[in-house]
Amino acid sequence: MNITCINGDQTDHVNASDRALQYGDGLFETIVIREGEIQFWKQHIQRLKKGCQRLGINNVDYARLTAEAEQLCCNQSDAILKIIISRGITDRGYRFNTNENKSLATRILSLHKLPSYPQSHYDRGINLRLCQLEMGLNPTLAGIKHLNRLEQVMARNEWQDETIFEGLMRDHHQNIIEGTMSNFFIVKNDRLLTANLSYCGVAGIVRQLIIDDKIGHQLPIEITQICEQQLISADEVFICNSVIGIMPVKTFSQQTYGLGPVTKLIMRQYEDFVRQTNNCGF
Amino acid sequence: MNITCINGDQTDHVNASDRALQYGDGLFETIVIREGEIQFWKQHIQRLKKGCQRLGINNVDYARLTAEAEQLCCNQSDAILKIIISRGITDRGYRFNTNENKSLATRILSLHKLPSYPQSHYDRGINLRLCQLEMGLNPTLAGIKHLNRLEQVMARNEWQDETIFEGLMRDHHQNIIEGTMSNFFIVKNDRLLTANLSYCGVAGIVRQLIIDDKIGHQLPIEITQICEQQLISADEVFICNSVIGIMPVKTFSQQTYGLGPVTKLIMRQYEDFVRQTNNCGF
Repeated sequence: MNITCINGDQTDHVNASDRALQYGDGLFETIVIREGEIQFWKQHIQRLKKGCQRLGINNVDYARLTAEAEQLCCNQSDAILKIIISRGITDRGYRFNTNENKSLATRILSLHKLPSYPQSHYDRGINLRLCQLEMGLNPTLAGIKHLNRLEQVMARNEWQDETIFEGLMRDHHQNIIEGTMSNFFIVKNDRLLTANLSYCGVAGIVRQLIIDDKIGHQLPIEITQICEQQLISADEVFICNSVIGIMPVKTFSQQTYGLGPVTKLIMRQYEDFVRQTNNCGF
Repeated sequence: MNITCINGDQTDHVNASDRALQYGDGLFETIVIREGEIQFWKQHIQRLKKGCQRLGINNVDYARLTAEAEQLCCNQSDAILKIIISRGITDRGYRFNTNENKSLATRILSLHKLPSYPQSHYDRGINLRLCQLEMGLNPTLAGIKHLNRLEQVMARNEWQDETIFEGLMRDHHQNIIEGTMSNFFIVKNDRLLTANLSYCGVAGIVRQLIIDDKIGHQLPIEITQICEQQLISADEVFICNSVIGIMPVKTFSQQTYGLGPVTKLIMRQYEDFVRQTNNCGF
């Protein structure tokens, strides 16, 4: 399954002059569809808009994007909807704000198979490793889900061991920032800690829901610098993103964690939140 | 003029699942064609191969790429040939080295108008500014001409003043690394200095020719950290890339430079080198 809709047309081919291809000049969202319903649409669109503002992509037709998403997904049962927004087609060169380069943003919507993870990942937790690749610091690009993903590509391909589900990435100062495709939290003394993403990383939808206490854990949260040692000495560790939801971590480096009460609570509250916010519509 | 050849087919559309579009997972070269002849082909292909090795893109058909470039360019008088090599088409996800994801690299060749710059840029020099955006440090990606170019896009769009030709970018430690589309050299006390690109930046073809003394300046070279103050106190400054060649800098910040003897010499030697290496063929 891979139906693609580009600027409203059902086609799977993109103009080669598009800036997404030329420079990675755009953003994306990866969205879960369950029984035809789009999860966290409001949050995904909010983050997309924030990213577009940061990159100065001012020419997105959000009304059309929403209609296209709705049309594409209404007949799907379970799927992933990936949305790419690029600055559009311009002449060669980095410059985008000339009169000649007034382009319309490109909307690329595609449907993919919803991955199914073993139940044991949720019941007993996953194995986590530490990646070698260090993320570059760039406040201009930090937090948004832009299309420059070579760091994640290279980090994800550091390991082949199928028993390792995710790898954490550090920045230049050895702060642990996030997984290649997820954010992480640690629980220590009934506090929740997650990494500061002011200099690099992607601010995930589920991470933000937890920070905003939308899923009802009522624990104090610290958004801070987290080093490897803090991870090792944590009481509990979990990772999260829109597709996997919340997954407990069983091992990291030589450390083993049990499925702790805070992670369990947050997993349960998350399930409730997902159920409640379905049918929220557009 | 914008003829595009994708994996040998004359088409200007790329599969939307291509990793260049999805993640910027690839590399590019921007090559000058003069009277049907491809400038610095050997150097461009060498850099491309080095970049592919770094990213683990092992599936490039260089023989076909060369034949396609030759066919596309032989009837062109003056043009730019842009080559994009991407890792190819895979399933969704950063991982590329699975059995399911064994893909062939995509070859995208496109012809563009060769820009013509005012002669005064060469005779009297250009105006240079300092960009605000700081480049991220990432040794894994430093030096190669990969497709993650959002830093350059954002830096180039910091200014609209048409009298400013180029902007220099700094890293996180305030070292000046390169221009948005060029490398730079400073001349100080009959030495040539250029930035160390071990942590970020693109190692340009012309920069490397100068470092290797292929264009016969016979001055000592230092590849080093360069701060703003060194630029301001330099005797001469010039920028370079494959398309512009070598351009003297007239102003930077409040500083004005004359067209000095070293820059003049290198410009002349560069012209000679281009003439000699034309007809080098494939």
